[in-house]
Amino acid sequence: MAPRSSDPTGLHRVLDDATVLPQAAQRLDTTRTLWPDEVRVRVETLNLDAASYRQLERKHGGGGEAIRAEVLDIVASRGKMQNPETGSGGMLVGVVEEVGPESPLGLAVGDRIATLVSLTLTPLVIEDGLARWDGRGEQVPCDGYAVLFGRSIAAVIPDDLPAALSLSVMDVCGAPALTARVVAGYEAPIVAVIGGGGKSGSLSLAAAWQAGAARTIGVVPHEREAALLREAGLADEVVVADARDPIALRDAVTAAGGPADITVVCVDVPGCEGGAILATADRGTVIFFSMATSFSAAALGAEGVAADVTMLVGNGYVPGHAAYAMELLRTHDGVRRLFEGRLEALA
Amino acid sequence: MAPRSSDPTGLHRVLDDATVLPQAAQRLDTTRTLWPDEVRVRVETLNLDAASYRQLERKHGGGGEAIRAEVLDIVASRGKMQNPETGSGGMLVGVVEEVGPESPLGLAVGDRIATLVSLTLTPLVIEDGLARWDGRGEQVPCDGYAVLFGRSIAAVIPDDLPAALSLSVMDVCGAPALTARVVAGYEAPIVAVIGGGGKSGSLSLAAAWQAGAARTIGVVPHEREAALLREAGLADEVVVADARDPIALRDAVTAAGGPADITVVCVDVPGCEGGAILATADRGTVIFFSMATSFSAAALGAEGVAADVTMLVGNGYVPGHAAYAMELLRTHDGVRRLFEGRLEALA
Repeated sequence: MAPRSSDPTGLHRVLDDATVLPQAAQRLDTTRTLWPDEVRVRVETLNLDAASYRQLERKHGGGGEAIRAEVLDIVASRGKMQNPETGSGGMLVGVVEEVGPESPLGLAVGDRIATLVSLTLTPLVIEDGLARWDGRGEQVPCDGYAVLFGRSIAAVIPDDLPAALSLSVMDVCGAPALTARVVAGYEAPIVAVIGGGGKSGSLSLAAAWQAGAARTIGVVPHEREAALLREAGLADEVVVADARDPIALRDAVTAAGGPADITVVCVDVPGCEGGAILATADRGTVIFFSMATSFSAAALGAEGVAADVTMLVGNGYVPGHAAYAMELLRTHDGVRRLFEGRLEALA
Repeated sequence: MAPRSSDPTGLHRVLDDATVLPQAAQRLDTTRTLWPDEVRVRVETLNLDAASYRQLERKHGGGGEAIRAEVLDIVASRGKMQNPETGSGGMLVGVVEEVGPESPLGLAVGDRIATLVSLTLTPLVIEDGLARWDGRGEQVPCDGYAVLFGRSIAAVIPDDLPAALSLSVMDVCGAPALTARVVAGYEAPIVAVIGGGGKSGSLSLAAAWQAGAARTIGVVPHEREAALLREAGLADEVVVADARDPIALRDAVTAAGGPADITVVCVDVPGCEGGAILATADRGTVIFFSMATSFSAAALGAEGVAADVTMLVGNGYVPGHAAYAMELLRTHDGVRRLFEGRLEALA
């Protein structure tokens, strides 16, 4: 039975038999016609979640054709881009094409926006077969349309920055905002960011410093990234360690002035839970931003070593998060250089 | 190469090639001889984690023989009880058999104890083929031995309570302790406990009340459990809702005086993340205690509905958690009646 009214959560577009939210649904209704509180966006670029892209890359041995075929298949069969292994999706950039009369999002036709809700709950139709994408890299040129619900988040792309730069910041803007909030709850804490040289990691380091950290420690996987992060000047200490090796991670953070009061996990590889917990002081907090985090590994890992730490599921939404992240980029040359360097490497 | 010294985390018993903690290991060394900081326990009963047992039950269509065979196989091949699907294990009861000269746990030979670290990181050898277990139910009579590391948690079973009762309280004692800590951080909050009639749920309701909740709401799946919880007098409001239906859960909690400032998830079924998030007020906290929780469903679910909520991975360890839970049982007749009724139903 078709629903007679739309729900701000998008429930009216769920095609599953059970009542589940769009994010948990197997399949979404991608009908082009809008409900009164919806917005339709002409898609320009899909930005796949890093953990999702890595999984596809591993699965297909890096074969671009096979990766592209699987993304097309997922979107066609589910009506949204959600990697069945990682459960994650990504975000998109596009131009507002139509705004329902009851949409509360404040968008206008022609606005160039990034969606800050996940692709895992966004009705999506790909119309060009991803012909302009070779299957390599997380940025996917795409023609098609997507639908935003009443309760959603979208940010207009600023005029003063290149679009690719804005997009790559907005993609991870939940991390610095939540890091800043947690840091502000401690008195001059020591903050370790695992994966401090990455996108969410470098922004989180800048946020920790800005929010009052007494000392910041950036952990990176190899010397090349350490050199980049040192040059960016975003961390008081930069150390090299394999985050999947719990003892190595604990020892590296301790040697750099830890244990940390707050440990922020920003690396998209599985198996970092134990090391993050061991690197954190009693009554400290671990914030997990990686979609590769295992809930049970975190819960049982802390219990297993009798660690009295608070563990947060990194919520991608904090009010004002996009504006805050853009501000960090504008005011920290080191952050901007890292982001620009990353984009150049991709180009 | 065999390690030359033991590590308090039990690292010296990990047989994997990579350096991982015992909880993340594929296989543990179950050698009977102790390292100086270890303790060996003669096992009486294994208490399987509820999510793990349910998964085995579903997989084998409730067939007791097949469930028993799989548990034996897991323990024989991995040297520990860890369900490969859920990642979870359980706990055990036994009698201390030998104490290494450098053990910091304060245990003595002959002490009857419950281990409060997970079976997923406890070296375990089953010696009786689980001959006294029919594969039905989470309580598994067992003869064999287990090893506790230097950094571990074990509680001596109190004399004034039946052992089965103590065990069943200690199994979930992390939940009330963490709930109390979170409740104390709010000013007279409204607390909803999803699965309020269960073991961790009823203790969490008592803890919330004791820690200063202004109103407690217990959510249960059907009228029979609602009647039991009402009779126990542990919640100001008792409502029936399917926690997997996000809209039904949101509406039920709202009608009972919500949204909740703190929502505690204690049900061992997948798919409760979205409803818990929607039932929680802005700037509220969701505590996930269920091992069936999906990290990505929680993280993306909150972002997807633009929910500014703090989400905690329920850490099974809070200092003093076992004593606190036993105290709640002793001082709340309603909690004790629910636990005793549950044990009678199993007998």
